[in-house]
Amino acid sequence: MLRIALAQVNTIVGNLTGNVNKILAHLDRARKLDVDLIAFPELAVPGYPPEDLLLKPSFVEANIEALDRIAQATEGLTAIVGYVDRDDDIYNAAAVLDRGEVAGVYHKAYLPNYSVFDEERYFRAGECPLVFQLAGAKIGVNICEDIWYPAGPTKTQALAGAQLVVNVSASPYHAGKGLSRERMLATRAADNVVLMAFCNLVGGQDELVFDGGSIIVDERGTVIARAALFDEDLLVADLDLGAVFRQRLHDPRLRKERALLRAEAVQYVELAPPPVRLKPRTPVSPQVVPHPDARAEVYRAIALGVGDYVRKNGFERVMIGLSGGIDSALTACIAVDALGVDNVTGVFMPSRYSSTESQEDASQLADALGIDFMTIPIDSTFQAYLDMLAEPFAGTQPGVVEENVQARIRGNILMALSNKFGWMVLTTGNKSEMSVGYATLYGDMAGGFAAIKDVPKDLVYALSRYVNEREGRKVIPQHTLDKAPTAELRPNQTDQDTLPPYPVLDGILHAYVEEDRSLEQIAALGYDRATAIEVIRMVDRSEYKRRQAPPGVKITPRAFGKDRRLPITNGYRET
Amino acid sequence: MLRIALAQVNTIVGNLTGNVNKILAHLDRARKLDVDLIAFPELAVPGYPPEDLLLKPSFVEANIEALDRIAQATEGLTAIVGYVDRDDDIYNAAAVLDRGEVAGVYHKAYLPNYSVFDEERYFRAGECPLVFQLAGAKIGVNICEDIWYPAGPTKTQALAGAQLVVNVSASPYHAGKGLSRERMLATRAADNVVLMAFCNLVGGQDELVFDGGSIIVDERGTVIARAALFDEDLLVADLDLGAVFRQRLHDPRLRKERALLRAEAVQYVELAPPPVRLKPRTPVSPQVVPHPDARAEVYRAIALGVGDYVRKNGFERVMIGLSGGIDSALTACIAVDALGVDNVTGVFMPSRYSSTESQEDASQLADALGIDFMTIPIDSTFQAYLDMLAEPFAGTQPGVVEENVQARIRGNILMALSNKFGWMVLTTGNKSEMSVGYATLYGDMAGGFAAIKDVPKDLVYALSRYVNEREGRKVIPQHTLDKAPTAELRPNQTDQDTLPPYPVLDGILHAYVEEDRSLEQIAALGYDRATAIEVIRMVDRSEYKRRQAPPGVKITPRAFGKDRRLPITNGYRET
Repeated sequence: MLRIALAQVNTIVGNLTGNVNKILAHLDRARKLDVDLIAFPELAVPGYPPEDLLLKPSFVEANIEALDRIAQATEGLTAIVGYVDRDDDIYNAAAVLDRGEVAGVYHKAYLPNYSVFDEERYFRAGECPLVFQLAGAKIGVNICEDIWYPAGPTKTQALAGAQLVVNVSASPYHAGKGLSRERMLATRAADNVVLMAFCNLVGGQDELVFDGGSIIVDERGTVIARAALFDEDLLVADLDLGAVFRQRLHDPRLRKERALLRAEAVQYVELAPPPVRLKPRTPVSPQVVPHPDARAEVYRAIALGVGDYVRKNGFERVMIGLSGGIDSALTACIAVDALGVDNVTGVFMPSRYSSTESQEDASQLADALGIDFMTIPIDSTFQAYLDMLAEPFAGTQPGVVEENVQARIRGNILMALSNKFGWMVLTTGNKSEMSVGYATLYGDMAGGFAAIKDVPKDLVYALSRYVNEREGRKVIPQHTLDKAPTAELRPNQTDQDTLPPYPVLDGILHAYVEEDRSLEQIAALGYDRATAIEVIRMVDRSEYKRRQAPPGVKITPRAFGKDRRLPITNGYRET
Repeated sequence: MLRIALAQVNTIVGNLTGNVNKILAHLDRARKLDVDLIAFPELAVPGYPPEDLLLKPSFVEANIEALDRIAQATEGLTAIVGYVDRDDDIYNAAAVLDRGEVAGVYHKAYLPNYSVFDEERYFRAGECPLVFQLAGAKIGVNICEDIWYPAGPTKTQALAGAQLVVNVSASPYHAGKGLSRERMLATRAADNVVLMAFCNLVGGQDELVFDGGSIIVDERGTVIARAALFDEDLLVADLDLGAVFRQRLHDPRLRKERALLRAEAVQYVELAPPPVRLKPRTPVSPQVVPHPDARAEVYRAIALGVGDYVRKNGFERVMIGLSGGIDSALTACIAVDALGVDNVTGVFMPSRYSSTESQEDASQLADALGIDFMTIPIDSTFQAYLDMLAEPFAGTQPGVVEENVQARIRGNILMALSNKFGWMVLTTGNKSEMSVGYATLYGDMAGGFAAIKDVPKDLVYALSRYVNEREGRKVIPQHTLDKAPTAELRPNQTDQDTLPPYPVLDGILHAYVEEDRSLEQIAALGYDRATAIEVIRMVDRSEYKRRQAPPGVKITPRAFGKDRRLPITNGYRET
């Protein structure tokens, strides 16, 4: 029996001292649990993704010194720790630490360079899978992307005799990814008749959330242990590596494949036998934390992303402009879950166009959540702007400019409060709005973090209903859920004066933004061609706004930000 | 004699129709000049860099259809045209077009994926250099990055017998790059005893400027033709390929190297003989446009970047908040050069802290340039904010918050004018300020494009003096050049209340931002350690502001934007 622990830790990019201390604390915990082998996530030492910190030689050097400190603390157990290795180039690496030393180093072979990933920008790819021997067991190590390729290192390692493959990952979340990742891991384990231990990062880092959910899969593809989702955890299990031998005898595919393996294709590391244990260990029954339902999963991902962004950047409190509408209501609920009710302030900023219902909806929400609530009327300042601009605007008609001025006054108020009291502003725009630019730059787009930036409007409603169901009461007022969405920047305005109905808008946006479909293909899905053209143009025209938007949590396969890199200057027209 | 033309065109990313029309017009011009072979820049059909447009299958398809239209127009001459090729993957490609057909296709072998480049995100690398035969001459084609590697395709092509190598490029500008590029090209030509024709893109695209300066280098490394810098051009020359044969006989290195060449390593394309010319051509004497001096080079790069960003995004006019200071003065001069005096409006927005000297400096500058000038006092609106915020701010001391409010009122005014009249706002912050965050988010950072974002303060002064020298008069008032820099957001403020003297600041910033030096290394350069720590902290702390800043022209080897990708959430400390 091999006792393994997967340390699903929440690191902070760049905080080498903090990350090392966290790793050392988990080594201590594991040692007390008589663990033989413990794994930490990909790049656990520098945090993931370190981006251009990797271009600083002093940072890479400090990360190697940090690894050495960890190595010295590996008495009594073996650890797999992600860090940046360096010779005349740098590598995304995992070290096998044993008896105070670096016993072996694996370099990631498959470097993702798509979507949010830029690993080819930094790393040289490794060329040789690693297998180490520990107490008679052969164990392979690989890193994140490596496991997604059927012909990748896992296959080589299994053919070279590994009974267990440990994959250390920093796998960014999007809705439903955990389940598809588990399906892949199960297939990989069963195909190669190998035990798989998948140790994932957890936590938020700028636009990304890592969802944890580390798992162990047996050689038939059954999940036998699962760590918490969206939280730190230490997953411990006893593994029967002998079962792998027995199962392999029955699989004729392996013999065929083994004939293709070149002996020199793998580096072997033999570790000294582990210390003799004087008293037998009590077997552990590994936990299998269930998956949350789809809405809870997304909600918790956003809450983790918001909480970590705020805290890891040195803030405690946030502030949200409450309009009485559903976007700011949902954002406030998430903030309370992420940071606690004492750390959220709602600010209602009525103008001449704000309805009394909006004020009631906003204050009801604040009451239901129990958060601080401020009201700052903007009309006298709005009038000062109108007076100040009367001369340059002489002879023009009021319109969207005057609407934007109101939004920007509100942005200024929130930023003034933020600067004065050190509270971070959370913006409240959803993905549908961000897609078509239905937002005021420097107005409602002003703030530090955009909680629901990647949440389409239909999902905003679904998550809002989820909150009320979960709490068993109307935290978000029914009127907020029922009324027609409006920016209230002119009399009797609704979003649908400017935009197609949200179900149509969201359908076109999904096809265009997330699936890269052409106008023809979108029309073929049944959407009105003229509407599709208008939506596509709005998306293309708003790239400049999105480029100046605050970051937000990625929850879809294609978020705005570093996941979608379109030029601002762009003459392509889908017609 | 082979008559070659390098068509240094200014394409627009995504504008396939416009780019095709530009290419067709240059084919016509070249045909009238009896040109045998014409080359266009890298990715001339889709524009460079197309970024995530490349993920849209419909865009790639449309680009291939566009190439076919160009191919059909190649009667009477051969053309090398950059486009995106596709099979089950996509390639950064150059097609050899001849007699209405695609006669050969080369796939770029070296894909840059550092600095501003993300080509591994999109393209598969090519594996086989191409040599085509035209009228008895052997000619190699390769693409941009390919030429920067001494053992790259150029060597293979020369060893395979090419007397001329045509490199089609989109080489982004930074100060001094043109000269170092020419030195590299000269070395490459002489090392391989081959004529080099380097056809570069010209124009601005978001953060990038392509400087043109296409050249032809003979087989001894002498530049025999140079196109305009920062402007479209058609560079025509008659090349004596026989001279290459003669020169090669004298170079013993080639025989040694040729023995290493594998025959299958190159794809050969044989073109039909060109049409017989009935009347002899008058020889052309190629132009050799001289390099501008260092200050003129940077100034013209910025002007091209600004002009193209504004025009290619559908704007004609810009607006600049003039403070009486040097940054806004230089920005206004650049805007006038880029867009014309009728397309620039200066706006002076005095508060209670603005001096009468500032007003005079701003209006003198506007007069000297001949631009429209508006004055919009902000004090009554500022007072409205102070009144509105009196209650939430009760018991606090006035400070940086009240300074930011003034800057944001000014940002709001410019954006209101922008929204009302369709003029783009140019922001005026320099690189020193952007580095340390000495700017107000949504205030003076509000706008569409940041002209001098990559210009350190010392270079701001040098470029300002350059303008006055070039014009032979004080366009920028002497008082603006002489006075201590100030934001005028509180009484008697100067920048040096908050920042180290600019020469010290700029020195530390250069070492930290552009050279990735550590604190220890910066101290070893002779800078005060405590000052260096403070500057480094300011840089690290302001990443969130830069992420919401408008784009600006890259003129240094490391600009902010996609050239420097640091995490916002970043726990690394250089101490």
